[in-house]
Amino acid sequence: MRSVRELSADYQRIRRFTERLSAPLSAEDCAIQSMPDVSPTRWHLAHTTWFFETFALDGEEVFDPRFNYLFNSYYNQVGAQFPRAQRGLLSRPGLEEVRRYRAAIDQRMAAMLRGDALDARLAAVIELGLQHEQQHQELMLTDIKHVLFCNPAWPVYENSDFLDGSGIGEAGEWIAIEEGVYEVGHSGAGFSFDNETPRHKVYLHEAALAPAPVSCGDYLAFIEDGGYERPEHWLSLGWATARAQDWRAPLYWVQREGRWMQFTLAGMREIDPRWPVCHVSYFEADAYARWAGMRLPTEFEWEAALAKIAAGNGGAAVQFADRLLAGNHAIHPTAALGAEETTARMLGGVWEWTSSSYAAYPGYRPPPGALGEYNGKFMCNQYVLRGGSCATSADHLRPTYRNFFPPDARWQFSGLRLAR
Amino acid sequence: MRSVRELSADYQRIRRFTERLSAPLSAEDCAIQSMPDVSPTRWHLAHTTWFFETFALDGEEVFDPRFNYLFNSYYNQVGAQFPRAQRGLLSRPGLEEVRRYRAAIDQRMAAMLRGDALDARLAAVIELGLQHEQQHQELMLTDIKHVLFCNPAWPVYENSDFLDGSGIGEAGEWIAIEEGVYEVGHSGAGFSFDNETPRHKVYLHEAALAPAPVSCGDYLAFIEDGGYERPEHWLSLGWATARAQDWRAPLYWVQREGRWMQFTLAGMREIDPRWPVCHVSYFEADAYARWAGMRLPTEFEWEAALAKIAAGNGGAAVQFADRLLAGNHAIHPTAALGAEETTARMLGGVWEWTSSSYAAYPGYRPPPGALGEYNGKFMCNQYVLRGGSCATSADHLRPTYRNFFPPDARWQFSGLRLAR
Amino acid sequence: MRSVRELSADYQRIRRFTERLSAPLSAEDCAIQSMPDVSPTRWHLAHTTWFFETFALDGEEVFDPRFNYLFNSYYNQVGAQFPRAQRGLLSRPGLEEVRRYRAAIDQRMAAMLRGDALDARLAAVIELGLQHEQQHQELMLTDIKHVLFCNPAWPVYENSDFLDGSGIGEAGEWIAIEEGVYEVGHSGAGFSFDNETPRHKVYLHEAALAPAPVSCGDYLAFIEDGGYERPEHWLSLGWATARAQDWRAPLYWVQREGRWMQFTLAGMREIDPRWPVCHVSYFEADAYARWAGMRLPTEFEWEAALAKIAAGNGGAAVQFADRLLAGNHAIHPTAALGAEETTARMLGGVWEWTSSSYAAYPGYRPPPGALGEYNGKFMCNQYVLRGGSCATSADHLRPTYRNFFPPDARWQFSGLRLAR
Amino acid sequence: MRSVRELSADYQRIRRFTERLSAPLSAEDCAIQSMPDVSPTRWHLAHTTWFFETFALDGEEVFDPRFNYLFNSYYNQVGAQFPRAQRGLLSRPGLEEVRRYRAAIDQRMAAMLRGDALDARLAAVIELGLQHEQQHQELMLTDIKHVLFCNPAWPVYENSDFLDGSGIGEAGEWIAIEEGVYEVGHSGAGFSFDNETPRHKVYLHEAALAPAPVSCGDYLAFIEDGGYERPEHWLSLGWATARAQDWRAPLYWVQREGRWMQFTLAGMREIDPRWPVCHVSYFEADAYARWAGMRLPTEFEWEAALAKIAAGNGGAAVQFADRLLAGNHAIHPTAALGAEETTARMLGGVWEWTSSSYAAYPGYRPPPGALGEYNGKFMCNQYVLRGGSCATSADHLRPTYRNFFPPDARWQFSGLRLAR
Repeated sequence: MRSVRELSADYQRIRRFTERLSAPLSAEDCAIQSMPDVSPTRWHLAHTTWFFETFALDGEEVFDPRFNYLFNSYYNQVGAQFPRAQRGLLSRPGLEEVRRYRAAIDQRMAAMLRGDALDARLAAVIELGLQHEQQHQELMLTDIKHVLFCNPAWPVYENSDFLDGSGIGEAGEWIAIEEGVYEVGHSGAGFSFDNETPRHKVYLHEAALAPAPVSCGDYLAFIEDGGYERPEHWLSLGWATARAQDWRAPLYWVQREGRWMQFTLAGMREIDPRWPVCHVSYFEADAYARWAGMRLPTEFEWEAALAKIAAGNGGAAVQFADRLLAGNHAIHPTAALGAEETTARMLGGVWEWTSSSYAAYPGYRPPPGALGEYNGKFMCNQYVLRGGSCATSADHLRPTYRNFFPPDARWQFSGLRLAR
Repeated sequence: MRSVRELSADYQRIRRFTERLSAPLSAEDCAIQSMPDVSPTRWHLAHTTWFFETFALDGEEVFDPRFNYLFNSYYNQVGAQFPRAQRGLLSRPGLEEVRRYRAAIDQRMAAMLRGDALDARLAAVIELGLQHEQQHQELMLTDIKHVLFCNPAWPVYENSDFLDGSGIGEAGEWIAIEEGVYEVGHSGAGFSFDNETPRHKVYLHEAALAPAPVSCGDYLAFIEDGGYERPEHWLSLGWATARAQDWRAPLYWVQREGRWMQFTLAGMREIDPRWPVCHVSYFEADAYARWAGMRLPTEFEWEAALAKIAAGNGGAAVQFADRLLAGNHAIHPTAALGAEETTARMLGGVWEWTSSSYAAYPGYRPPPGALGEYNGKFMCNQYVLRGGSCATSADHLRPTYRNFFPPDARWQFSGLRLAR
Repeated sequence: MRSVRELSADYQRIRRFTERLSAPLSAEDCAIQSMPDVSPTRWHLAHTTWFFETFALDGEEVFDPRFNYLFNSYYNQVGAQFPRAQRGLLSRPGLEEVRRYRAAIDQRMAAMLRGDALDARLAAVIELGLQHEQQHQELMLTDIKHVLFCNPAWPVYENSDFLDGSGIGEAGEWIAIEEGVYEVGHSGAGFSFDNETPRHKVYLHEAALAPAPVSCGDYLAFIEDGGYERPEHWLSLGWATARAQDWRAPLYWVQREGRWMQFTLAGMREIDPRWPVCHVSYFEADAYARWAGMRLPTEFEWEAALAKIAAGNGGAAVQFADRLLAGNHAIHPTAALGAEETTARMLGGVWEWTSSSYAAYPGYRPPPGALGEYNGKFMCNQYVLRGGSCATSADHLRPTYRNFFPPDARWQFSGLRLAR
Repeated sequence: MRSVRELSADYQRIRRFTERLSAPLSAEDCAIQSMPDVSPTRWHLAHTTWFFETFALDGEEVFDPRFNYLFNSYYNQVGAQFPRAQRGLLSRPGLEEVRRYRAAIDQRMAAMLRGDALDARLAAVIELGLQHEQQHQELMLTDIKHVLFCNPAWPVYENSDFLDGSGIGEAGEWIAIEEGVYEVGHSGAGFSFDNETPRHKVYLHEAALAPAPVSCGDYLAFIEDGGYERPEHWLSLGWATARAQDWRAPLYWVQREGRWMQFTLAGMREIDPRWPVCHVSYFEADAYARWAGMRLPTEFEWEAALAKIAAGNGGAAVQFADRLLAGNHAIHPTAALGAEETTARMLGGVWEWTSSSYAAYPGYRPPPGALGEYNGKFMCNQYVLRGGSCATSADHLRPTYRNFFPPDARWQFSGLRLAR
């Protein structure tokens, strides 16, 4: 558990970074919901604030009694929710008022965090609120990317000089997993979400994981081999989805005059084949792996592989290093291969689809009360992604972290790593 | 045809009034599209400007080459159009840039209108552009009303003191139509849209039209008599629509604690039974009329009735007088009845549904070129409304004016007048 | 009014012909509903019987109490209805039981029709029931055609030797309409539906109607000129429909090895360019007319033109003569042109779309009670077709007959005639 | 591997039983597809025959060249398929022709099975074809049940005297699972589907499984406690589905005059609270378990529990005994509890939802060629059910059998067993 002083510093740093992320955007940019999965930036700004107001400042005065309905995402035990798919219909409260809301709650939180001691439950809620805010920071980036892409002018979120391939080296060795009983999941020290617990045993069979995520160049070979036209590579549901939505390449890939471009937060850029492929669905990741004669790893194989690398690295699971966005995020995953830094390539590049359906660990119990709705009720028809992306805050990456999305989701920074 | 000086004055007055209408709105208010029929205010601001740039300044320099795609509404001969239902996905160009666009085009139009003479075709296009802008002024009000209503806080567009019933008097006599041949449609003098021409003969049978539109009090009796639960009053398609969309009252009517409220541009207000009912669909208008043992008038009966009143009024078709919004519009139709001013009650209160399907007049020919797409191609599955509403500019009202909407449309200021 | 003896003979003849129409079909053919607009043949067999049981034998014993729910089409005043779009989910009562139902009702009707006298109201209901059955005879043919077309084996309903063009001559003169007041609608003598009344005056402007319906050869020129790719010919709603449904030719037209084939009730046949085009929607008819520089006639122009021809023909509106199906119907409209028999070409070839929206005549009143739901409540968003088709019984054709379908309907034998 | 003689006997017995199942149905019953998941009985009859024609008689003469398109279910490597959701649009080939098809293929199969020896690969394909036919036998019953239920007359498939509760005893002890490594999956001897292999090790934690499936009486307590109105029991996706589809009880449950009835293949019957609940979705099974303070077992816990019972039972996993339908199936699952026969209660009552997402076993490889599409491509967004139902053939039950359906599927005989 972090000290009050540490929590207070984290609070200020993380909350400020949220504002840093919305700074390049106009009030209109922040208002738009381009599909049901996307939330307007302004909603993210308000919802993360509502989280502290509701769960940490619970019982004290309320900034605006209408906000509980508007900014409650999905906590039934806290009350009814404004329909998710209609968040883009709200022009008010406007961006300025939401900023005032943030300032008011920050002021009250600062007062709470000024002292030396804090009730342990409260400290845990605040830490959860900060982790929650970091999750929304990533969503803000993936959501605004989708919004901007819907505009035929393809506006730039932030110009960034990420395109040189410096530091992109050669791939390392495949990571071997030996058959046997392994321990997986989070154990005690440090923060984790409830869905990472309890730490428990699993039986793994012999396997090997690729040293790096699949690159754009690799994926292009799949496209050029007719990957999107041949049902034999695809799950039945994946094929139906790909046909119904007319998928021919990852999301944000556009072919112009024979060259493949990719929309990034820095605008439309020509694809560097060394980049890790991202914005692929589980269906595409699975089809690619079948085409390559391999498969996706399970989430436990992935976790065991990372543990092995970290062990060989003096215990540290080093992450992707090329973070260009002030202090924390990158605009796009660029480093795919690098012999000298194999260890770095499992955290912070792209989220890696695993073949594991998102499910409860043996003995899992959601916490009591509304916060029990945080994770558990979503354990159906979603697949686990591991590793974290360029858009994940560096201090939010964690070897046991379980991200999850439905198999047709493509707007996250989602890629894949092969297993055999 | 108006003189250049008159045109120039009209241009400045009408364009300025458009900005007056958007003044109470934030950038976010102007960005939202709450349903496919609604356009964002910002889109209206840009589209009306694009109209002048494209049709009046045609061939000169272009403000932004992307705007032709974004702000062309439906003129196939001018080029492809950004999908109508996705107008709300565009955050850029933002409100400020759209205002710069307006200013730039206004400057070029001012230069064109500075001289003494103007090519007749060009003058006609400019006059059409101004009538077009007045149509969009009304749409801006009806569209933003729908946007604000989607917000559970029910924001106020403009506070307005329209609720006293002063000047609301008694209904006059029914207006009798004698059987015979009548002339209808627009003839030569002054502006009209192509769809009002050519003036031609129709044969009318004996009929009578009510002296005033149906009031909220009248309509409430229909509701309370189970009007929305009894299929025998309804067209088959209307009944199916009413059930599928769960209609139980006009759009914007809300029952709270036993009292009927109506959302207006001035916020949620208690209904005054003397107001004309509005925001009813053709289906509801027709069902009400059947329930009342009567019917809707045809558009030609309506036009003949107005002509008769005007004749008795020294030739002038006087309009609703209670315009509260600066110079031109009202926030809500309030005056329904008034013995001493029967003549005033056919123009500018509510649009009145007629039983006439929107169709070409005998000998109708759309103008050549892209402007031929203005009206003619919409002549299917729509019904004609006559009279103009509180949101129609006073100088845009015209006895031969034909408005038209699909029979399920409710978001316009649409009411009805009985015939027998 | 027909005598009881005549009614009795009509009853037997018409009812027997219904069974003749279902004779070539298996129990399974009779069970299928290939789209919501189509009803299973078995349902038609039962519904037409239910009509007599309910409206003519009203109040006597009931064959099966469940049938009122299953076989009531849309008469709300008679009770609730099994959902129309689910008629194809009913396997029971099976074909054999429905035939027993027919026989039982026929027996009771025969007893009623045995005497010399019959209450006038009852006689009128029986005559209406027979006209109703003839309407369903045509629907049986158009519906089973759609069902069989959904089967990739394209089964034949009835082999027919209709392909020779014998008797197809040259087109005659255009039929001129002079400006003035005309009387239209049905007047007294003989049967008509309520929607054909009252006879009333209309004012027509000068016009001319083509001597024959548009032929397949004519229509092919439209297709080959890019008619389905050029929005300028289309109503806005028509263009949207054509694109959404990917129309490239009339329904049932299939291009194979460069040749145009058409699915008919006699199987897939090569198109004879002299045939009248059919299975086009209102949208296609309208687009064709615009492309040809003309327009569709109004229903009153059509009726006046027919009256003129009949007057020149000694008062008789002679109909298409080539009826191959036993006694009454043809399998497909084949005769399009013929100088020597211009008079014959307005009744019984293809239903001809008019530009008239289906609406009540001045003074129209639906009959009281449930039978008032027969026509009136459908007067919205439908367009009138005149003339009757090859699938209409010869004694069901009538100059004042108003058929009506929504503008996107294509599965009827619907074609068009040009006006200018 | 079975001898040719055994295979031949199985072939005749199983094929004949398929015909036995369709015997009570009319041609029309066999034609209807009541929802996309349901196939017409006639399609089942043909498809199972096509399976032998295509995979066992491959390369010889073809009965009808059109059948490969019509009756190929989903084998892309064998060719294109008639759209699944449109199977109910086919009236031809009719039931009689399909029966001739069955007879013709049976004759050729009989000739092949007459000898003493058979190629091993061919024998395996025939065995697979028979297992496949048994799967479709169960689907025929669940599909026709859905078809008949759509008819408001609720027809009886087969009258059956299954309602007495004789032999329904008390529940036994909970089945304890000890923590450790277990072997699961099919190993060598006897038939299995590919998805049951390879046998492999899993690590299980301490658990206990209920001695019997949840009963209707148990489930009624959940309903009466507001189970369908309280989101806190439900998965997020389950709650959304339940609300969208307005679920208030299991499929086929109908409340009449305060009593709960259930539609069965023997008609509408009053519910016996001792019956196992069935026709619940995964979502409902999961919600019930949460409400009860427990959870669903994983498929491996279930398999380990059955192995333990069988071990205590001298090695035999005895099945439900009350089979009323000739020789093989029951009409409805009736025996829920019985102390003296605990062992019998895991196979053949209801399919039991497990919490395991349907996924490949470690080292799983689908067979080469088109038969590789049998199972593997469906491993996404489905959940495993274990145990077999009353509608499963007795010799088709198998401890390692993995059935699978999407979590919203309810039309199978699907129930649940609690774990803790």
